[in-house]
Amino acid sequence: MRSICIVPDSEGIDAEIRRLAGMVDLLLLTGGLGPTSDDMTRESVARAAGVELVFSEELWADIKKLFPEGSAAPSNRRQANIPAGFAPIANTCGTAPGFVGRIGESTVMALPGPPGELDMMVRSFLNGYLDNNYHAAASFFTTWTAFLVPESVLEDTLSGICGPGEKWRTRAEGHRIVFELEGPESSFTTVEELKEKFGAILIREGEKSAAQLLADALLKSGKVLVCAESCTGGLIGKMITDLPGSSNVFWGSLVTYANEAKRRLLSVSALDRYGAVSRETVVEMAEGAIVASGADIAIAVSGIAGPDGGSEEKPVGTVWIAVKTKESAADAREFRFRGDRERVRLRAAVAAMLLAESHLTGVGVDSDIFSTYT
Amino acid sequence: MRSICIVPDSEGIDAEIRRLAGMVDLLLLTGGLGPTSDDMTRESVARAAGVELVFSEELWADIKKLFPEGSAAPSNRRQANIPAGFAPIANTCGTAPGFVGRIGESTVMALPGPPGELDMMVRSFLNGYLDNNYHAAASFFTTWTAFLVPESVLEDTLSGICGPGEKWRTRAEGHRIVFELEGPESSFTTVEELKEKFGAILIREGEKSAAQLLADALLKSGKVLVCAESCTGGLIGKMITDLPGSSNVFWGSLVTYANEAKRRLLSVSALDRYGAVSRETVVEMAEGAIVASGADIAIAVSGIAGPDGGSEEKPVGTVWIAVKTKESAADAREFRFRGDRERVRLRAAVAAMLLAESHLTGVGVDSDIFSTYT
Repeated sequence: MRSICIVPDSEGIDAEIRRLAGMVDLLLLTGGLGPTSDDMTRESVARAAGVELVFSEELWADIKKLFPEGSAAPSNRRQANIPAGFAPIANTCGTAPGFVGRIGESTVMALPGPPGELDMMVRSFLNGYLDNNYHAAASFFTTWTAFLVPESVLEDTLSGICGPGEKWRTRAEGHRIVFELEGPESSFTTVEELKEKFGAILIREGEKSAAQLLADALLKSGKVLVCAESCTGGLIGKMITDLPGSSNVFWGSLVTYANEAKRRLLSVSALDRYGAVSRETVVEMAEGAIVASGADIAIAVSGIAGPDGGSEEKPVGTVWIAVKTKESAADAREFRFRGDRERVRLRAAVAAMLLAESHLTGVGVDSDIFSTYT
Repeated sequence: MRSICIVPDSEGIDAEIRRLAGMVDLLLLTGGLGPTSDDMTRESVARAAGVELVFSEELWADIKKLFPEGSAAPSNRRQANIPAGFAPIANTCGTAPGFVGRIGESTVMALPGPPGELDMMVRSFLNGYLDNNYHAAASFFTTWTAFLVPESVLEDTLSGICGPGEKWRTRAEGHRIVFELEGPESSFTTVEELKEKFGAILIREGEKSAAQLLADALLKSGKVLVCAESCTGGLIGKMITDLPGSSNVFWGSLVTYANEAKRRLLSVSALDRYGAVSRETVVEMAEGAIVASGADIAIAVSGIAGPDGGSEEKPVGTVWIAVKTKESAADAREFRFRGDRERVRLRAAVAAMLLAESHLTGVGVDSDIFSTYT
């Protein structure tokens, strides 16, 4: 990778394409393929290549299929134009096809900008293209996911473990760090050391989500989940139902944000004596959720997401999480998450889902790892 | 703004600085001012300017003040170097001072990369600098938000309405389009025409979220909300509780994903006869949520988010939404959202929140706009 250039929707795009095409083997453009007048990638590439735009009846037919009969807007018609001599790249989940061709010695490829469409086209097209044309995917690497571990701690740990010739790169997202290990097969011993330090439940093979890991464990054990959410406000239900097919394992969630809701829906009685953010309350929430639903396993979460509501004894970031199965007593743990409201809620949801998974698989259920790295 | 270039931490930075300094009045560099060896902005600017780095005792004294007595790391000492002839820019919330000076005809400014520090320096220094030196804050524009309207339809409508000298730009996000109108004050008549066409509830002043608009209407009317969510799976509760202070207006959400959950928690009886995705079911869900909670207003959502579960009669994207207040009968409407699972769920949540808002404010409650643009 030589550089990433971000250019506004202006005539300046042409000059930038010409400049970069003179420098690199492959120039990848993203975005600017939409139907509106500030989507100028088609025109810019044509001008930079010194060719005309050509209207493709075939692409237009594909685009029209995405709309109910006759309802494609006139502006969508522009999306069927591609520079003469360029080959179209099909977009199966949006209206903007991509295209690829040559400018001078460079290959120039345009892909759509909306993250969902780009992601799909990277998977369905670009990865294979890079592999075929540049052997770019040939280097040996493995992908892993770390949950709840702070990025700087993971980084320092990796630099202490990795031997010569082993490289790594990390990508921190809200709810996880995806990291790749590049180099000899000793990567696997590196990962063993990470699991030793952080716990096998927090270091996972591949690019994983906590919701998917929990859903897989539920499906495998034939159990159905119910949630009782306070500070996460529906986030756990949302993350689980992001997954198609989650109806096989998810009964529902009792989002009891108000204390009155905890009393009415979950029969919680501990509020006055112990407060909403306490071991007693989340245990009663989990028990109440099992009773209300008849589901096999319950997650209950109550905490202080901030920015207000913290106290000396229970600062912002204090979250109690309980997991209970029909057969066993509730397992309740206290967490102190750092960061803003969004981060606290996301980490609470991830910790709760992984704790529930560990109760289904038995992995890591007896360790303190969940609340060590928060 | 001419362009944004992202360059890896390499010798390539020098060449990029020289190239860009020849093109622009002001070249703004961010990042690479930290204490580690891959922080090379100081050296790169000095080489590009053809000057030496000079150690500043004054800056070093400022940096040391940020650490407990005597504990500043030796690597922090590097941060007191700036290119000869450049003026330092104080950083009041981090160790990396910025600097500004000339290379050829261009002003070159380096600011720290950590978002919190950069944000502070943009507010405390850069905005005033741009205003004083370039009058850069002078252009007249207004920001608006469009909900549920497809981007191509908004674009075609704007290009039909806008007069000469009026420009616009749009930014489509999952749940809305933020658009800016630039030009004479006639922008306001443009917006009136958009409201006429799409409905005043879908075209809103400023950069708004549907959850914030609903929370504002709830707070103003002193009402408390309860949700009964099926296909949205907790997303509406999540979006409302993203807002700090939402506990004043949000009772909770009954996420009844399984049919059994709709029966047990909401006493829904219409499932066998009409199916989960029907007027009868969402009306009973809304009624059941009011009864279960005692809240003032209920939102109920049930639909087919896909990718599976669609039929000829009820294809993927079919969503029924009901809004009911304590005093009035339920208002139930059918929607046909296009797109993938994520888009269908997001649009259903936005439509439900705006429909509830319209029942609180009275604006647009009698129109069909909600289900026209989906």
